Amino acid sequence: MDRKIALTGDRPTGKLHLGHFVGSLKNRVGLQQTHDQYIMIADTQALTDYFENSQLVVDNIVEVVSDYLAVGIDPELSTIFIQSQVPALCELTMYYMNLVTVARLERNPTVKAELTQKDFGKSIPAGFLCYPVSQTADITAFKAEVVPVGEDQLPMIEQANEIVRRFNRLYNTQCLKEITAHLSETKRLVGIDGKAKASKSLNNAIFLSDTPEIIKEKVYAMFTDPGHLKVSDPGKVEGNVVFQYLDAFHPNADEVSALKSHYRKGGLGDTVIKSLLNDVLQQLLQPIREKRAQLKKENLFDLCFEGTQKARSLAEKTLSEVKTAIGIDFFEKRNFYQRNH
Amino acid sequence: MDRKIALTGDRPTGKLHLGHFVGSLKNRVGLQQTHDQYIMIADTQALTDYFENSQLVVDNIVEVVSDYLAVGIDPELSTIFIQSQVPALCELTMYYMNLVTVARLERNPTVKAELTQKDFGKSIPAGFLCYPVSQTADITAFKAEVVPVGEDQLPMIEQANEIVRRFNRLYNTQCLKEITAHLSETKRLVGIDGKAKASKSLNNAIFLSDTPEIIKEKVYAMFTDPGHLKVSDPGKVEGNVVFQYLDAFHPNADEVSALKSHYRKGGLGDTVIKSLLNDVLQQLLQPIREKRAQLKKENLFDLCFEGTQKARSLAEKTLSEVKTAIGIDFFEKRNFYQRNH
Repeated sequence: MDRKIALTGDRPTGKLHLGHFVGSLKNRVGLQQTHDQYIMIADTQALTDYFENSQLVVDNIVEVVSDYLAVGIDPELSTIFIQSQVPALCELTMYYMNLVTVARLERNPTVKAELTQKDFGKSIPAGFLCYPVSQTADITAFKAEVVPVGEDQLPMIEQANEIVRRFNRLYNTQCLKEITAHLSETKRLVGIDGKAKASKSLNNAIFLSDTPEIIKEKVYAMFTDPGHLKVSDPGKVEGNVVFQYLDAFHPNADEVSALKSHYRKGGLGDTVIKSLLNDVLQQLLQPIREKRAQLKKENLFDLCFEGTQKARSLAEKTLSEVKTAIGIDFFEKRNFYQRNH
Repeated sequence: MDRKIALTGDRPTGKLHLGHFVGSLKNRVGLQQTHDQYIMIADTQALTDYFENSQLVVDNIVEVVSDYLAVGIDPELSTIFIQSQVPALCELTMYYMNLVTVARLERNPTVKAELTQKDFGKSIPAGFLCYPVSQTADITAFKAEVVPVGEDQLPMIEQANEIVRRFNRLYNTQCLKEITAHLSETKRLVGIDGKAKASKSLNNAIFLSDTPEIIKEKVYAMFTDPGHLKVSDPGKVEGNVVFQYLDAFHPNADEVSALKSHYRKGGLGDTVIKSLLNDVLQQLLQPIREKRAQLKKENLFDLCFEGTQKARSLAEKTLSEVKTAIGIDFFEKRNFYQRNH
């Protein structure tokens, strides 16, 4: 197989929602047909800020894997693995941490932005500050050539490439590959309140596993145009969440375009467009929900185990090259890795 | 065996010298009779500030192991292992890094003192700042109850115990043990120039592997009492390097005491005491040097391999308990660790 390797992943801190679906999951269902796709359940990374609530991270692993399979990610085509079960990633992180300064990590715009969102104050956990190094380990371990990211993640890729270049120069090797970021085409999905992106923590997202009743409730609670009081009034499409969701999910763009004109002119009520969006989302989510309901938890761990074995093998290979480059491959040729527990 | 576990180690950044001998090696030769002693070649830690000169670290591993065996550390009694070949230590470090803040690491007095010695300036490598976390991983991994340290290392032990307490409280476990520091009895050995402690970087140490000629040269170059011009002059014993070395190495304390009185009164020349010290050191170092010369490099790696396997097994056990406490022991019961390279 000469397929390029793609790496994606999610922090298991909650079930996945429509924002993940349009922003990433749909893309991955396509990628797995053309790429050797690795999908990482980033539990170690999640623990850098959820270490006080590790149970939440643990519980959500199976939820996230369920969401993957439900949307059509096929474990025969994609390698789903659990980050914490690939020790080579920790080892790579340790060696890369020597090649990046504390000041540089503190300047990382993505980290900076996240720090202001969290309430760490002056008490920034060392693990959190260093998570970009850990991400560099993830990406380089699998020699991923395709790493789909949002625009806000570009500084992470730049950080990773700095480490890659420094490592290769310092140890006179080419064993690490620079990463080309693939910007996701689809923009972020707005929350149902219209105020921010859809997210679990803001409680403004429609989850892939929501019941039909909850979906309907959330659609009918969507922010539209507060000036659009009577059906006959002209309505605003910009900032109208229902239309943004129709843009993202309605299969027929022309139809959505016609509805927008009608809404702008007046004579099209919110209830009508919400009812239409509800139909569209119910149709999209019903098969996903049904597939999700049929999944067996044991099987999910089986497939994570299989995937993790494959991921380990690839990551160990890179680690071995890295150790050889540094010169610390003392026992490489020995049958060292027979553990006895 | 109900022996307590002792953990010691050295950064392989140079051959070992008399300072190591009185400060630590002699003690270890005794400890191995009463304790289950693990001796770590701390190459990963050495790389946190020698990452630009990894070959030096690599080359010195075999030198340090040679010094161990030459002074009487017995691989049948002590487990000598190489830090970089125990991946569990990296994994533990990652999880502990979430439990310590960047500010706390920056306040660590040992790190602070070392930072002023090094020329990092504002460019402190993240790996260097975090090395106390890595040390915590080392100590806890082996559940060492005896960790001989110098006074300057006490803040490291305090740091480690903070992490241990936080981990146990947070994850409701007792799997990590608090560490009791064992202050080394012997003080630091002064350098032959009398100005600082004996160290390779200051080029003022007598190495265990020095030739008889070099030893003699260094003894005769020792700082004594610059006011002691004529043999008949009274001489100062305080700050006189020769007497400090006689205190440390002469087998008969009474004899040294008598020499000191004589020197203070006047009538005892520097050449006489230097000649005596030279005899004492030649007698001490000859068998060490001869034993060292007989060692075969391949055998040294063999014994490091054996020791590292034992160390891995113990560290993996602790890691497994740590992962269980956090809740991320997903595949523990599976035969996961069959690597295929």
